[in-house]
Amino acid sequence: MTAVKGETRTRLLDTALGLFTVHGVEGTSLQMIADALGVTKAAVYYHFRTKDEITEAVAQPALDELVALLDHAATINRPGPRADYVIDGFVDLVVRNRVLVAVLCSDPGIIRAIDRILHGEESVMTRLPAMLVGPDADEGAQVSSHVALAGIAMAGGSPALAAMDDETLRRHLVDAMRRQLGRPRRRDTPTP
Amino acid sequence: MTAVKGETRTRLLDTALGLFTVHGVEGTSLQMIADALGVTKAAVYYHFRTKDEITEAVAQPALDELVALLDHAATINRPGPRADYVIDGFVDLVVRNRVLVAVLCSDPGIIRAIDRILHGEESVMTRLPAMLVGPDADEGAQVSSHVALAGIAMAGGSPALAAMDDETLRRHLVDAMRRQLGRPRRRDTPTP
Repeated sequence: MTAVKGETRTRLLDTALGLFTVHGVEGTSLQMIADALGVTKAAVYYHFRTKDEITEAVAQPALDELVALLDHAATINRPGPRADYVIDGFVDLVVRNRVLVAVLCSDPGIIRAIDRILHGEESVMTRLPAMLVGPDADEGAQVSSHVALAGIAMAGGSPALAAMDDETLRRHLVDAMRRQLGRPRRRDTPTP
Repeated sequence: MTAVKGETRTRLLDTALGLFTVHGVEGTSLQMIADALGVTKAAVYYHFRTKDEITEAVAQPALDELVALLDHAATINRPGPRADYVIDGFVDLVVRNRVLVAVLCSDPGIIRAIDRILHGEESVMTRLPAMLVGPDADEGAQVSSHVALAGIAMAGGSPALAAMDDETLRRHLVDAMRRQLGRPRRRDTPTP
């Protein structure tokens, strides 16, 4: 029974994410989610009371991973290896969640859900660039870190690159992010 | 009378864009736009029949500029100067339309409006990367061009960089885009 419930929950969140990418979070209703699943609205209510709860559940796993990535990175003292770790980990997260990350970074509905989830925690959007270029980076490095992070996140979900297999995309995204941040090019292909 | 009408239209489009950034296109109704303007829904209908018409009118000017940029770039034969021209022009467009471009690149409602506007034209999203890295670029260069374009577009609208003045942001974005595309660093500050 629990397994079946878990499966339905996963299918519901996948369906919701698909609708979010087409209609945006605010343009997606519980009824649309129910219709796409071929179930009643009551069946959706069984799992989630509100769309806010669904949005948070969609964003939560990737966000937990991102926070864990940043927490581990904070234990690495030397800036170079710390940036390398964040680059590999961030690209890996993007590639494993291509569609989700693009929605995460752009949909105002998801951005509000992220704020609710992270209530009280220091903002991921502040910690992430700081891990790459240091907390006292000059303006040029700050802009560069934002271009790198937004570029990787959005390119991962780009329809133009959808046909590229994960491993190839991962390698090129790591190269692109290192180039943007002025990190030396890797000779090996990292598999974080 | 025409001047007053033009002013109202501009204010209406500015208000709509502001609501789009908060609620997404699909989450914004004509009623919300009317309420934010302090007018009746009928007054909004006087200018636009549907939300689609408003969305298209919001996107149209920047899109016309982008098409003009690409059309001119197509007349430049040498790949290096052509890429330089597109980099300067694209960054300029982003900086002059910081909020709009971030919404343009991410909101599914606007992306559909763009498809309607450009119906029949070769896709801007195909032409733009090709102008930067050539039509037969290898996979790495393709990924790089997407990272550069998405990164510049999204970083331009980033709240974290909102306090930066236009000229400083423009200079750093040009640097970042050139670095991503492997173009040599400029010594002067171009003002396109």
